[in-house]
Amino acid sequence: MSAFWWQASCRPLDPQVAVQALQRQAELTKPAGALGQLEPLAVRLAAQQGRVRPELERVCISIFAGDHGVVAEGVSAYPQAVTVQMLGNFAGGGAAISVLARQLGATLEVHNLGTVEPAPAMAGVCQHQLAPGTANFTQAPAMSGELCLAALQVGRAVAERAAVAGCQLFIGGEMGIGNTTAASALACALLDKQLSELVGPGTGLDSAGMARKIRAVESALALHGQARAPLDCLQRLGGLEIAALTGAYLACAQQGVSVLVDGFICSVAALLAVRLNPGVADWLLFSHSGAEPGHRHVLAALEATPLLQLGLRLGEGSGAALAVPLLRLACALHGQMATFSEAAVQEHG
Amino acid sequence: MSAFWWQASCRPLDPQVAVQALQRQAELTKPAGALGQLEPLAVRLAAQQGRVRPELERVCISIFAGDHGVVAEGVSAYPQAVTVQMLGNFAGGGAAISVLARQLGATLEVHNLGTVEPAPAMAGVCQHQLAPGTANFTQAPAMSGELCLAALQVGRAVAERAAVAGCQLFIGGEMGIGNTTAASALACALLDKQLSELVGPGTGLDSAGMARKIRAVESALALHGQARAPLDCLQRLGGLEIAALTGAYLACAQQGVSVLVDGFICSVAALLAVRLNPGVADWLLFSHSGAEPGHRHVLAALEATPLLQLGLRLGEGSGAALAVPLLRLACALHGQMATFSEAAVQEHG
Repeated sequence: MSAFWWQASCRPLDPQVAVQALQRQAELTKPAGALGQLEPLAVRLAAQQGRVRPELERVCISIFAGDHGVVAEGVSAYPQAVTVQMLGNFAGGGAAISVLARQLGATLEVHNLGTVEPAPAMAGVCQHQLAPGTANFTQAPAMSGELCLAALQVGRAVAERAAVAGCQLFIGGEMGIGNTTAASALACALLDKQLSELVGPGTGLDSAGMARKIRAVESALALHGQARAPLDCLQRLGGLEIAALTGAYLACAQQGVSVLVDGFICSVAALLAVRLNPGVADWLLFSHSGAEPGHRHVLAALEATPLLQLGLRLGEGSGAALAVPLLRLACALHGQMATFSEAAVQEHG
Repeated sequence: MSAFWWQASCRPLDPQVAVQALQRQAELTKPAGALGQLEPLAVRLAAQQGRVRPELERVCISIFAGDHGVVAEGVSAYPQAVTVQMLGNFAGGGAAISVLARQLGATLEVHNLGTVEPAPAMAGVCQHQLAPGTANFTQAPAMSGELCLAALQVGRAVAERAAVAGCQLFIGGEMGIGNTTAASALACALLDKQLSELVGPGTGLDSAGMARKIRAVESALALHGQARAPLDCLQRLGGLEIAALTGAYLACAQQGVSVLVDGFICSVAALLAVRLNPGVADWLLFSHSGAEPGHRHVLAALEATPLLQLGLRLGEGSGAALAVPLLRLACALHGQMATFSEAAVQEHG
């Protein structure tokens, strides 16, 4: 019995199916390895789903939004009101992730964990409003312990409902003006890297903004730098939406739902989830390496080989959504290609 | 009036639509540039299609196959009979490109330019059989001038039919045991690069095979090295399927059909087409940078920024097919996202 829910075992992969899927790959009418990264991807999905020919019909996207007290330090190019404004755009179908979800036939949920501006009731948005954003972590912990657990729990509940609904691939997305600053601070606390490698321009800061962002992260690390345990880091330096993502990834792995990780902020949440429970790693797939310079360092810490490098830096789960067709095509190739014997094609001479 | 068909003007892009599409990009509810490579991609497609919101419903894939006399030098890991065997697999639905075409709702044509083994009549395969493969170009020109023009013409006719059918995106694929050797020889003749940078393991040569392949290309360059004009290079060092691809790309650009270029061999054909008629460049989109080491040098010569880097090395048009969903999603994002004013979202503060 684990003391805390996030420590409970993750579902194990199916090693026998992994072997069978690998064997099937070797028999398909192509030179071994010719489909590059798509081959181990199909095998991993097979081991996750426990079926030699995996499929990804039911894709569930959940956006988690929250505001950040650190915005007071002038770390974003956008006004904080945009967090709430974008909630309406997600639900109204006009945001990038809304368009992508529609094109993919994926479900899209929008969860507001807590914004500074009061969020009016909006069709299609779950208003959790746990707090009016986080505290300014250059001066105090971002969240109380209780608030941090509540935000984790929101993500957990979302993932558990997705599992019950038969979700085969979970994508978490985030929205929160200032949240690359929180993600950078977390990355600094979790990784053995220079701050300059982990703080970037986010949605488009100029050099004065970058200087303020670097100062904010330095102040935060000076104040909270003793925190090394992942849960402490999350509570002191994180965000409500980052905690929800972490909770969702943990619960997905426990329920046996494959996760497709989006960009920098989601990758930091994934790193937190893996540090809290190493079994999560088996369930994570990585969609892309984005424009934010810290992203590749976080991915390296996760030993991730992302599928796309398109210079994306939008968030919202959009990079993960863009990679879904590649996962589906990897499954189709793995499941539907003829074997050498079926097609009467000779193997190596 | 141009003396030769391939010198006739390519259709110009629509500069006014390009400006309008760029302006629309700037108004969509995302930080400018946040969708990375997908933004200029949508703008380019708009300028090609002459519509501010482009779409890619009708995708046409044509595979061109042919055998290579240089296989006598021991340059492939596969027996030459595989070229004909794979024709049946393409048409039968079991090859990678067959699976991908089905998933994408794309049409798939298979054109046999000429194989060593007599190809039996097969449903779904156009048997052109211009010659029993090319000659061994370590000893003689790969093709006569007449044969080269006939192979170019097959590709041209395929592209012109696709244009009449309303094709919005043309993908050429290739199959031909030994054709990375021909492509490497062509790349050596066309580019100012070391042979060692342009000859790779193809479908999976061992080191003895690689040594034979390098020797074959060296012999070919010694024999034909004076050839610098692209058409001479193609005739002396090319292949029937490479000539057909070149002809198809030229005709697509003349007809105003966007082309999505596949891997190493197709990129060499694209380079030939651009050298024969520089206007072709406006119509080329690049799907991926593959595992074959020479590919990135050919892409650099074409000033290409490919979308995917997945370690692919299959050919058949498969890498291009894998990138189609990204093009379609780029169009959907560009065409369907809300603008800042439509969504009542603030721009930069």
